[in-house]
Amino acid sequence: MHLRIVLVEPLYDGNVGFAARAMKNFGYSDLVLVNPCAVGKEGIARAAHARDVLENATYLTIDEVFETSHVTVATTGAVSKSASHPMRMPFCTPRELREFAEDIDGTVSILFGRENWGLNNEEVKRCDIICTIPTSEIYPITNLSHAVAIICYELSQLKPLVSIPLATYKEMEHLYIHIDEFLDDVDHPDFKKENTMILIRRVLGRMKLTWREVTTMHGLMRRAQRRMKNSQLEIKQE
Amino acid sequence: MHLRIVLVEPLYDGNVGFAARAMKNFGYSDLVLVNPCAVGKEGIARAAHARDVLENATYLTIDEVFETSHVTVATTGAVSKSASHPMRMPFCTPRELREFAEDIDGTVSILFGRENWGLNNEEVKRCDIICTIPTSEIYPITNLSHAVAIICYELSQLKPLVSIPLATYKEMEHLYIHIDEFLDDVDHPDFKKENTMILIRRVLGRMKLTWREVTTMHGLMRRAQRRMKNSQLEIKQE
Repeated sequence: MHLRIVLVEPLYDGNVGFAARAMKNFGYSDLVLVNPCAVGKEGIARAAHARDVLENATYLTIDEVFETSHVTVATTGAVSKSASHPMRMPFCTPRELREFAEDIDGTVSILFGRENWGLNNEEVKRCDIICTIPTSEIYPITNLSHAVAIICYELSQLKPLVSIPLATYKEMEHLYIHIDEFLDDVDHPDFKKENTMILIRRVLGRMKLTWREVTTMHGLMRRAQRRMKNSQLEIKQE
Repeated sequence: MHLRIVLVEPLYDGNVGFAARAMKNFGYSDLVLVNPCAVGKEGIARAAHARDVLENATYLTIDEVFETSHVTVATTGAVSKSASHPMRMPFCTPRELREFAEDIDGTVSILFGRENWGLNNEEVKRCDIICTIPTSEIYPITNLSHAVAIICYELSQLKPLVSIPLATYKEMEHLYIHIDEFLDDVDHPDFKKENTMILIRRVLGRMKLTWREVTTMHGLMRRAQRRMKNSQLEIKQE
């Protein structure tokens, strides 16, 4: 799926710059501008390190947008309240759009309207799909660049670049054996031990410990065990 | 779960205003500012109809933030590359944070750092959880207000206010019967019919049609059927 972000007649170049930045944050670069405001200093400043996205933006007419897309998506704050008004019904959420779009082999153009009144009915009419970001009834109008950021975030579904090396089953079992031994060393009453071990397993089990965290726990218990033994020796020697 | 957004030493009031707006868009209002820049005209303009969120923001010290929260979350662009550096490891994504937080009965404070260098190590150290928005390696630094918008979007999980009235099973079956009849009326060859009906079911089945869309299809077929009958009558009369 090739994602294209289309800003239809944006009024403020600051928003255009911010939208370019949000796109690049999520790995997208195909920005199309339809009859936009002049993009000046403010736009470039807000694009920050996404100046390339802004400068490589394509200027198309609305007809050209449709002619060069496989699927067109109209983003809209207002949706129809009834199925009797098919202009903005049915609609999907960004999450549903992701599921719909992920296996598309072609260009999916997502259209965002003007800051003051969005896409007009003519534009919405021609789109294949209506997408709306679920928002609070009290203040449903999101900033244009925020809407772009949320759609890009949702559609990109990037994975964190770093993975978290969890402790293996064996490492966890080894830890529980050590804790069991530690409970003996601190004279934890035998009759309580089984329940305490279950409790500890519940706590540590839901922690998704990394190997490093497990290693540190071993280390701390070993130190405590050593210290306890030393004091016992000292007591004996006295 | 009570969500609190904490901006730690934000440098630009425009971002503070935008953050307030994004919060209100997703139904949140508890904004905390720690030693922020002066919030002036620009901040108020960008907050737009979330001026109340901005004006009701609480000014706290970083200590007070921790003292009044049940769970604290440090948002960070950079995460540790290895589990050997537990400062920013392990971490979770906004989606994982949502799953973690949804059954919490208490205040979850999400800390966002300065625009230029984020949260410092002292602040990160004291937080319970590290959260990172997965971004492109090429340009991982998101705008502060975009990060707030994405976290609020993800955690709010609002449902669209309007539901989509899909056609019922019965209504769909009734439609297929009508289409079957229509195929006869247009002399669709009998030997092709079964496969054509399967194809039509595949197409319409994945469309999740609303009752209104089904009604319109019935109407169009009925009109065509009437017209065909009339022409036959006319032919006979001639």
